[in-house]
Amino acid sequence: MKLYGYWRSSAAYRVRIALNLKSLTAEHISVHLVKDGGEQHSQAYANLNAQELVPSLVIEQGDQQQVLTQSLAILEYLEEAFPQVALLPSDMYEKSIVRSMAMLVACEVHPLNNLKVLQYLANELSIEPDTKAVWYHHWINEGFTALEKMLERHSGKCCFGDEPTLADLCLVPQVYNAKRFNVDMTAYPNIQRVNEHCLSLKAFAEATPERQADAT
Amino acid sequence: MKLYGYWRSSAAYRVRIALNLKSLTAEHISVHLVKDGGEQHSQAYANLNAQELVPSLVIEQGDQQQVLTQSLAILEYLEEAFPQVALLPSDMYEKSIVRSMAMLVACEVHPLNNLKVLQYLANELSIEPDTKAVWYHHWINEGFTALEKMLERHSGKCCFGDEPTLADLCLVPQVYNAKRFNVDMTAYPNIQRVNEHCLSLKAFAEATPERQADAT
Repeated sequence: MKLYGYWRSSAAYRVRIALNLKSLTAEHISVHLVKDGGEQHSQAYANLNAQELVPSLVIEQGDQQQVLTQSLAILEYLEEAFPQVALLPSDMYEKSIVRSMAMLVACEVHPLNNLKVLQYLANELSIEPDTKAVWYHHWINEGFTALEKMLERHSGKCCFGDEPTLADLCLVPQVYNAKRFNVDMTAYPNIQRVNEHCLSLKAFAEATPERQADAT
Repeated sequence: MKLYGYWRSSAAYRVRIALNLKSLTAEHISVHLVKDGGEQHSQAYANLNAQELVPSLVIEQGDQQQVLTQSLAILEYLEEAFPQVALLPSDMYEKSIVRSMAMLVACEVHPLNNLKVLQYLANELSIEPDTKAVWYHHWINEGFTALEKMLERHSGKCCFGDEPTLADLCLVPQVYNAKRFNVDMTAYPNIQRVNEHCLSLKAFAEATPERQADAT
């Protein structure tokens, strides 16, 4: 397997954690999201992934090449293909709660704060850095307020119970980003507690951005 | 089952299509997203769904009440609970392609153009309507350009092959929104063709916003 990613990409970070938890190895190929207007827009990468986003997970079996895109779709694939370390509960309803937490991050928070949106706010709408920070904090706080309530009800050591699930794989990279942009985390004790526990696990620690080969 | 939704909500629209395709009936309860600052923020609704978003699917079994949130998590639940009309292919890799198309809409396009973001742009950043339209069109065009390439490769009558999948359930509401905001669709012949085919199916036609009881 080859994982096309970038050290600071939250979506690639999610997949790195899953690979580690499931003891799967992949060759990591760095796609620099900033250099030269973003290597993800190069013709070579666009041929691989029409969405021009990271991550892409490429699985080679003999002559065949399967290209998987969108981090949550990749995580669902890994869950089905390598079920030995389960990242979803077996109960259908519990599964939906975990997915809902994951999607709260992946569909409500992260899309508003990723690099391309922050670039658009600055370059196209001439939004000043201070106002951009207010924007960034607003969507994090809205999402984390809701997630904190869900964790009050469902969390153990992790977002749902005591073992890592897809929800933790989405949460930890989002907290990394929140801290990078100086979001005050004191209102979210459950999120902080779960984040700290997860980062104490080797699979999460080894997936952190700073420990990737392309970190600068 | 009770579906808390709103006629114009894209996320509720996705779930309505799934219920129709699977011949499931649900009582539809309208949560007005604009009136009184948004009924989704009322205490009663926030108690049901901490995310204060529609849709919520409530399943009552005896004394127990299960509340499902986040449209894609609801769709995955319905897929597992009521598999008789499958909305995902059985092959793992094909499944990942369908989910990737669905998430391209649900994670890259829709989150940037939903009501709360458009309200924030206008009210907090004082973005003028013309500039807001440019913002709206930008993210639709970026997402549809990528999706059009994926449809060139994978579509039949529908996004993936000839039968509806989760990808179509996300695409059709997004095209509805694009047209509502006057996005020029001529660059997307495959998207238009698939959209028209889907809307010719009763399950999609009956889920359209204008045909809901709360449409105004």
